[in-house]
Amino acid sequence: MRALTYNRKLELDAVHPDPQPASGEAVIRVLLAGICNTDLEIMRGYASFTGVLGHEFVGLVQDAPDPTWIGQRVVGEINCPCGQCPTCRRGDGIHCPTRTTLGIHGRDGVFADLCSLPPENLHRVPTELSDEQAVFVEPLAAALEITERIHIRPTERVIVIGDGKLGLLVAQVLRLSGCELVVIGRHDEKLAILRKLEIQTLSETDVRADLVADVVVDCTGHPDGLTLARRLVRPRGRLVLKSTFYGDNRVNLSSLVVDEVSLLGSRCGPFAPALRLLAQKLIDVEPLIDSIYSLDDGLAAMARAATKGALKVLIRP
Amino acid sequence: MRALTYNRKLELDAVHPDPQPASGEAVIRVLLAGICNTDLEIMRGYASFTGVLGHEFVGLVQDAPDPTWIGQRVVGEINCPCGQCPTCRRGDGIHCPTRTTLGIHGRDGVFADLCSLPPENLHRVPTELSDEQAVFVEPLAAALEITERIHIRPTERVIVIGDGKLGLLVAQVLRLSGCELVVIGRHDEKLAILRKLEIQTLSETDVRADLVADVVVDCTGHPDGLTLARRLVRPRGRLVLKSTFYGDNRVNLSSLVVDEVSLLGSRCGPFAPALRLLAQKLIDVEPLIDSIYSLDDGLAAMARAATKGALKVLIRP
Repeated sequence: MRALTYNRKLELDAVHPDPQPASGEAVIRVLLAGICNTDLEIMRGYASFTGVLGHEFVGLVQDAPDPTWIGQRVVGEINCPCGQCPTCRRGDGIHCPTRTTLGIHGRDGVFADLCSLPPENLHRVPTELSDEQAVFVEPLAAALEITERIHIRPTERVIVIGDGKLGLLVAQVLRLSGCELVVIGRHDEKLAILRKLEIQTLSETDVRADLVADVVVDCTGHPDGLTLARRLVRPRGRLVLKSTFYGDNRVNLSSLVVDEVSLLGSRCGPFAPALRLLAQKLIDVEPLIDSIYSLDDGLAAMARAATKGALKVLIRP
Repeated sequence: MRALTYNRKLELDAVHPDPQPASGEAVIRVLLAGICNTDLEIMRGYASFTGVLGHEFVGLVQDAPDPTWIGQRVVGEINCPCGQCPTCRRGDGIHCPTRTTLGIHGRDGVFADLCSLPPENLHRVPTELSDEQAVFVEPLAAALEITERIHIRPTERVIVIGDGKLGLLVAQVLRLSGCELVVIGRHDEKLAILRKLEIQTLSETDVRADLVADVVVDCTGHPDGLTLARRLVRPRGRLVLKSTFYGDNRVNLSSLVVDEVSLLGSRCGPFAPALRLLAQKLIDVEPLIDSIYSLDDGLAAMARAATKGALKVLIRP
């Protein structure tokens, strides 16, 4: 099969071996895949991954031990836990210390004709959702992990920093709470997508010194996002970090102690509510699509995704 | 002025004295008012109220000490706290023990040509909202008090019992969390409003013995709503009571102890997020309107609102 692989360099391999599914796993023909900033960070060294890149996809089940899966259109959760360890037994498989993660750690990803996953990771996609919508389920689930972890009250002021792909999804999820939402970004054409949804936006250069919020979510993907986020959160407020990137942060932890700020990391999230919100048309993902490339043009797709200001680049095998 | 008054019986008084606003208060000309179940419960003895009924309204400020209010279209919070007592000083004025409440306790209501409120209770209505939408701000705020008080996770199953006016608003608010929502009711034509919004519904007669939820909200307005709600909530789940009515409940409190269920009462809520969600078109109130009566037909309006199965009856002075 064809596959976009990373091993110190990015290559399109036209004769990559088909996935060798472990016992019980399903083989899925990829219909559409999305490029995430994490894919770009992997090429900078994040997670020390080598293999087939990519973890956001919608596909058709081609083979599975349970024949009721075959032919189903699915999206798939990316973490594959062992199911046996204490972490798994307390119901927290996504943090299993020996897990593999699709296209990120120990398991080939989805920028390929085929991929494999355990069937318990799969979710059927309702017919009313297009492939272009369904491919956003994984990053939308990641946005929903914020409201899964913390209680955002309708009366609170919430600031999202970052107008990239993830920031735009996070903002759309948070506005559903009724909260007073402000999104701070650098790209007016992206902030315009949010203004159409009646979400307040602010250019990073226009942030006033007295702006504070109960909850601040950093979706910048840059170490300096945290610095601004820290400045904007009120004493006893909550600071949510969505960004994962290669390297360390410098943080003044004492200031978090003095101001009694809670810091919360948040990554992968629940697929079922993401599918529900898309089916109910409460999240609009179409304006987030930058472009669609064929897998044969995978190198160009990755180059486009790495371009400053690019939104979601999709790959259709 | 004209006013619909209750004093052991309901009467339309064509020569009721105009409101005598206390110092600092605004006088508001009522544009449109809504009949709430609480108004009907008052006529059964709830809150021992006598005076002008009604607390849901949109109006135009006719007079106010601060002239910037005059001519503004407003909705108004219904609780008027003293501002001085320990409850008020801890920021919880809506529970002030000496508060008055519009059309419910110690203060004439809005089924009249004019009403009065302190300006701090008023919220300007954005021009894009119609009077017919704005009149729902008060009950929508009451629905939002649920998500203000408790954290509903996108992965949780939530059941709303009751397909009346309040149940339909509560369901629309809760679906925005992405949760797995089921609404149980008795009126298929009302449940159909929710099915159009892709919300699951269930007739009360079809509730299976094994149905359980993480959170159950009773919006029935009847004592027996609590019995069903209790049955449906899982151990360690949360039970939210929205219903207020005249009289006592019989509850087996020991079963709440054994199952470690949290019971939470919830009433008035925040206006600002209600205005935001309406402006963002995330809540659809128009299907909830049953009929609009003139104030001269106020007695017929109240009779219609008391009819089994009636949705929101509005009064236009």
